[in-house]
Amino acid sequence: MSTVKLMPPFGVDIDLAEGVMADPDRHLVRKASAMLGHYQDADALARLIAAGDPLHYEVFEKNVPEERGQVMFCISKLEPGDVGGECFMTKGHYHTVRETAEVYLCLRGRGFMALKTADGQCLLEPMERNRLVYVPPLWAHRSINTGSEPLISFCAYPGDAGHNYGDIESEGFPKRVFTRNGKIAVV
Amino acid sequence: MSTVKLMPPFGVDIDLAEGVMADPDRHLVRKASAMLGHYQDADALARLIAAGDPLHYEVFEKNVPEERGQVMFCISKLEPGDVGGECFMTKGHYHTVRETAEVYLCLRGRGFMALKTADGQCLLEPMERNRLVYVPPLWAHRSINTGSEPLISFCAYPGDAGHNYGDIESEGFPKRVFTRNGKIAVV
Repeated sequence: MSTVKLMPPFGVDIDLAEGVMADPDRHLVRKASAMLGHYQDADALARLIAAGDPLHYEVFEKNVPEERGQVMFCISKLEPGDVGGECFMTKGHYHTVRETAEVYLCLRGRGFMALKTADGQCLLEPMERNRLVYVPPLWAHRSINTGSEPLISFCAYPGDAGHNYGDIESEGFPKRVFTRNGKIAVV
Repeated sequence: MSTVKLMPPFGVDIDLAEGVMADPDRHLVRKASAMLGHYQDADALARLIAAGDPLHYEVFEKNVPEERGQVMFCISKLEPGDVGGECFMTKGHYHTVRETAEVYLCLRGRGFMALKTADGQCLLEPMERNRLVYVPPLWAHRSINTGSEPLISFCAYPGDAGHNYGDIESEGFPKRVFTRNGKIAVV
């Protein structure tokens, strides 16, 4: 019945407080310069890049077969900060197989998960330690850090989901989150 | 292309330190009396049941469509204790769709994940806070608490995986974990 090859179990060490996976197979590092076009204030982003191009976020992953039945997982660590008042965020993505979900278990920090559908529905789910956000199939999603410490999540999604960043690069998200005088504003 | 219905995102509050999900749709509670046949020392289990039938473990779940592409998740909380020296454990299960994996992110406590295949391979993966165990497709799995506090894990697996407890009830696991004079013994 099964065509799946037997593979050995494995363990992965993850510092849950710091949001760091030991010995990841992939370590994605996105600095400000990787975020061109994503923030409203392009000049503020250019200044930030010129001033040292700080880290925005990291994603730590282990190799898992990209197949149905497997469960991909990662640690997402989004730094605090803003670009002209707009809170640091991830690029966001659809899954290549759009009919696949993802769970985000927030381990530290505070912010939002912005979610949108291809037909323009958009909403923000609060994220904070002790909260899980369920991203159903068909929803693009991006994390936004509104706090003063890293926003750290453990994420799990189907092995055959894949990532599609391109559609969000062109579509964008209709909602943006700013921090102004210590208050959060969604526009 | 898609036959998946659009469903709304949702959030779930989870006390990560206590291993308690707020407002679960299912709350599985297994006491000693639910564990008949699982421990080596049946008399010790009978005495434990007679002495108050203490809690062994809890599983907290939310409703997610049991479909391919969805991601089921739960909190597993296994109490510390022993039955005639054999460390408290969960029943263990295969997935109904055996070609499906599961991730266990350990949030608190210490123990093992016992894993076995239908053809008799068996091994123990250490579990402790800051460690994830990847249960690949085809492996039955059970948690074992060797510590003095609850063993708490966040688990995620494919929506169409299902649970098969029956085969493990009849097969058992070839390895057992005991605590003797403060030391852990695997037999």
